[in-house]
Formats: sequence, C-alpha cells, structure tokens
Amino acid sequence: MREPQLVTAEGLPDRVTIYEVGPRDGLQNESAIVDVAVKAEFIRRLVDAGLTTVETTSFVHPKWVPQLADAAELLEQLDLPDGVRAPVLVPNERGLDRALAAGVREIAIFASATETFATKNLNSTLDEQFTMFTPTIQRALDAGLTVRGYVSMCYGDPWEGDVPIDQVVKVGARLVELGCHELSLGDTIGVATPGQVTALIRAFTAAGVPVDKLAVHFHDTYGQALANTVTALREGITTVDSSAGGLGGCPYAESATGNLATEDLLWQLNGLGIHTGVNLEKLVTTSTWMAGQLGKPSPSRVVQALAG
Amino acid sequence: MREPQLVTAEGLPDRVTIYEVGPRDGLQNESAIVDVAVKAEFIRRLVDAGLTTVETTSFVHPKWVPQLADAAELLEQLDLPDGVRAPVLVPNERGLDRALAAGVREIAIFASATETFATKNLNSTLDEQFTMFTPTIQRALDAGLTVRGYVSMCYGDPWEGDVPIDQVVKVGARLVELGCHELSLGDTIGVATPGQVTALIRAFTAAGVPVDKLAVHFHDTYGQALANTVTALREGITTVDSSAGGLGGCPYAESATGNLATEDLLWQLNGLGIHTGVNLEKLVTTSTWMAGQLGKPSPSRVVQALAG
Repeated sequence: MREPQLVTAEGLPDRVTIYEVGPRDGLQNESAIVDVAVKAEFIRRLVDAGLTTVETTSFVHPKWVPQLADAAELLEQLDLPDGVRAPVLVPNERGLDRALAAGVREIAIFASATETFATKNLNSTLDEQFTMFTPTIQRALDAGLTVRGYVSMCYGDPWEGDVPIDQVVKVGARLVELGCHELSLGDTIGVATPGQVTALIRAFTAAGVPVDKLAVHFHDTYGQALANTVTALREGITTVDSSAGGLGGCPYAESATGNLATEDLLWQLNGLGIHTGVNLEKLVTTSTWMAGQLGKPSPSRVVQALAG
Repeated sequence: MREPQLVTAEGLPDRVTIYEVGPRDGLQNESAIVDVAVKAEFIRRLVDAGLTTVETTSFVHPKWVPQLADAAELLEQLDLPDGVRAPVLVPNERGLDRALAAGVREIAIFASATETFATKNLNSTLDEQFTMFTPTIQRALDAGLTVRGYVSMCYGDPWEGDVPIDQVVKVGARLVELGCHELSLGDTIGVATPGQVTALIRAFTAAGVPVDKLAVHFHDTYGQALANTVTALREGITTVDSSAGGLGGCPYAESATGNLATEDLLWQLNGLGIHTGVNLEKLVTTSTWMAGQLGKPSPSRVVQALAG
C-alpha cells in the first residue's frame, strides 16, 4: 500500500497521540444502529492497528442517542490489552453511575462554548451547565477516574455565528479548575481557519492552561481540518482527535461531512515523520470493513484513495 | 450565506492570486463533454465572481482530449473584460500555432518531473521533453506571449513512488531558463505533506528561482491540499491554482478526487483575511450550476456545506 514520502518540518512535535472517537462520536452520528458485536470487533481492530486511546461509547440516555444504547453490554464484551485507554462519554451523574458500574476508568464530559448550543444540546444555559458538571466531575475524581472536558462550538456556532474567544477560554478554564486533565477544543461545525486556531490556543495558554492539557478536535465540513491540525501542531499541540474512516457527520452542520478522518490525519503525520504508533494499512482495512457494515462508503479521502 | 470568521495569522501574505484551472484542467478530466456555450457561460460566471486569471482551454490534439476539442470556438465566444488573464495550455508548436491563430496572449506548457510520466503523458524522456518545449516557448516569447510552466508529479509519481527533489528543481529551473515567467509546482496525485512542500520551495529558491515565480497546484486526493497550501503561503507563495467546485479528477490517481476546490481554498483565505477579490457566494452558485450541467455533485466540501 502506498505510504507518504517522509520529509520532516521544523517546529513540529516528534510524536502525537491520536484520540480515536469513531466508536462514540462517529457511530452516535450515523443513522444506522450497529450491532454490539460489530462495535466490539471495530474497537478491537482499532486497537490492533495501534490506537492506544479509543473513546468507546457514551452513557447518555438511550432516548437521546439510541445508537449507543448498548454501552454497558459493549464494555462487557471488550477485553482490551493493558495500556489502552478506553474513555466513555458521560453527560451527568446518572451516566456516571452507569459508567462506574461498568468499571470505567476514564470519562469525558461534553460542554458548550455557546449559549444557544447549551440550550439545544444540554437544555441548560452556558452557566447552568456547570451545575451539572461540577458534581459529576467531583464524584468521578473521588472514584479515581480521569476526566476529559470537551468544549464544543469553539470556532463558530450555527445559530450565533462567530463565538467570542474569551467565552471559549472561560468555559474551558472552568473545566480545568473543576479537575479535567485535558480539554478537547471542538470545531463542531467545521468552520475554523488557521488564524482562529492559533489565536484560541494562545488565549488558553495566556489564561494559564498549559498547551499539554489541550487537544484539538476538527471537523472537515468545510475541508479545513488538516490545515487547522498542522497549525495546531505548530503551536505545540500533541493530542489530536479523529474518527476512523471519517465516521459521523454533525447533525447541527449543514453538511453530512463531519469528523476529521483518522486515515487523513495519519497520512499527514506519517509524511511529517511524527510518530503515532498506528498502522495505516490496518486502519484503512478496518474502515473499509466498517463502511461495509454501515452500507455506505467512507468519506475519508485516504480510505477512498487507497481502498478504491 | 455563512462566511468564515476573520482572524489573521502572522507570516502570511496580504493577498493571493487564485489561478483558476476549472475550465481547462477541470473539464479535461471530467468524462462528460460539455457544450461550448456552457463552457463560455462558466468562464463568464467565474470572471463575474472576481477571478482574474482563468485558464480557459487547451490546444492539445482533440484525439487526446476530446473534452476540449472546441478550443478555438470557445475563445471566439469569449469576450472577457480588460485585466482578465486567460491563458491556454499548449502542448507543442502545432498547439501554439492554433493558439496564436485564436489571438491568445498567454500560454502554459505542461512538463513532467519524472521519467515515467514523461513517457506516458508526453511520449518522451525527461530530457527529450525540452526539445519539444524549447522552440514552443521561444516562438511564444517572440510573439510577445507570456509562458507558464507546469511541473507535474513534483511530490510523488504513481509508478516511481518518491521523486528526488533535485530532479524536480532541475526540470523547473530549466523551464525558467527557457523563459517561463512562472512555475506551477503540481502534486498531480495529491500525496504531498507539508514537510515536502517547504523543502521543495526552499530548494527552488536556493537554486536561484525566486519565490514570486512559483505557484502551487495541489490535489486533494489524500485530503492534504489545504494543509499544503497554508504551508506554501508561509513560505511566501502568493499564487495558488485551484478548480471551481473541485472539477476534474486525476486519471493517474487511484481516486476520483482531484483538484483543490476554489471554494475550499477561498474559505481558508477569507478566514485568514487574505485578499483575493473573489466572491464566495457567486462562486458557490456557479459551481452548483456547473454540477447540474455535469449531472453530478461537486466534490468541494464548501460547496456541499453551503449549497446543500
């Protein structure tokens, strides 16, 4: 299988952690409901391809996300090797209870950087979302879990348009204060361009959140995800979220194209000689298999190019 | 229509010239043959959207590119405003004769950076291609024309794999010596990553070809085109090739995804506050109309997001 030519560039990190979101963020946004055995096989294959951090599922109420109603059953079927991190999304204390009962060691919570998305997605105001997060995070920490904080709509909101950078930093910094070990800065509708990325990362570090606590989460809705990624790497980011095969659109964006595909990211990182430990060929094979399960082609450019 | 938020970044140019290749490079690689009146309307609409440099057609033999067999007829139908540059591709002296007869003021010639592609595309060796180009360029210059030189397969070749950087620079520098005012460095199969882009541009400037004589031409086959573009801008590049709506695959690549879409490029440049003079909304409307003419959706992410 073709591999990119290796030519390094100055000012970039030596290694990057790919935070794989396909099984959770990807499948939650696909209309098809996938059998639990297929999900377990998918995760096993992702880990076999070398991914060491895989967000596996979500303990949100099945009424809201029927695609992931089998969360507890899925975790029972998984027997992942030591050293693999398998965080799950938890919306609130009830979700945390279910996650704890399933033996989860890492969780992620999902915050909004805008008032309108907080209302629509969390039925809450921008401030009120923290009354939900505070006890959830505290109890998770007390139980010895680590907590990741997603900040969504960092670069634009479908209802509000531009999002003030101070507002994003305020939401993120508060999550760090509450005990999140990492923030994932999400371009939920895929509109960001490189100047925004640099400005937001620098605003966080200026506010006292070190760059090694920041991850980036780009969507490719407007084709900008990899340009934004290489920009973030230049700012010192070393954790990048992506979704195998580009699984998962965004229901709030105008287009079906959603998450940055892990394969497209890996092509860039491999070409730059940035170590990830992930095997491109195994990943492409896995995403091609998963596309067959979903009955639709992968939107990943690399998967299309290499598996076509 | 949604526009990106404007946040500038340091180290980037204030303005960029978009060299639009849709009517030539795009339509030549579409399987459908488009009526000459539709082509003329397409070019008029591109110019009306603010594009000032539009490669309109090719005087290659109709046997090889039947899609552009109407080159002379198309140019007769065009009546472009002053200040609009309308170069045409010319493969050899016979093509130049036809271009001169049609009153063309700018031409482009298409060279290969690799032995195998020179053989397959030009039926020539890497060196022998210059025996074709030398009299073509000289006669064009004598007639007062300007000549652009395309260098194809700069970052990878489907048969040879990696391409030695010195070989690319040697081909390009020779075209400049022969009188080309500009080189377009093509990633014909879309495999490049940012380290390669930086290295190639610096190798050209080290060899005495100034950066203002260089243009970049990326394909999005592996999703890397915009990451490579922003990298090139950081190296001082101010001319970027793209194709409205992402028209045109590459027949030599594994996938149908070819040229960087002008709309995807424009989203990035607008977001960065880099002036182009091009109106995004008019361009999206034009590409949507053209997609209707071709009977297939535009592969541009931005067109899909905004017109969907």
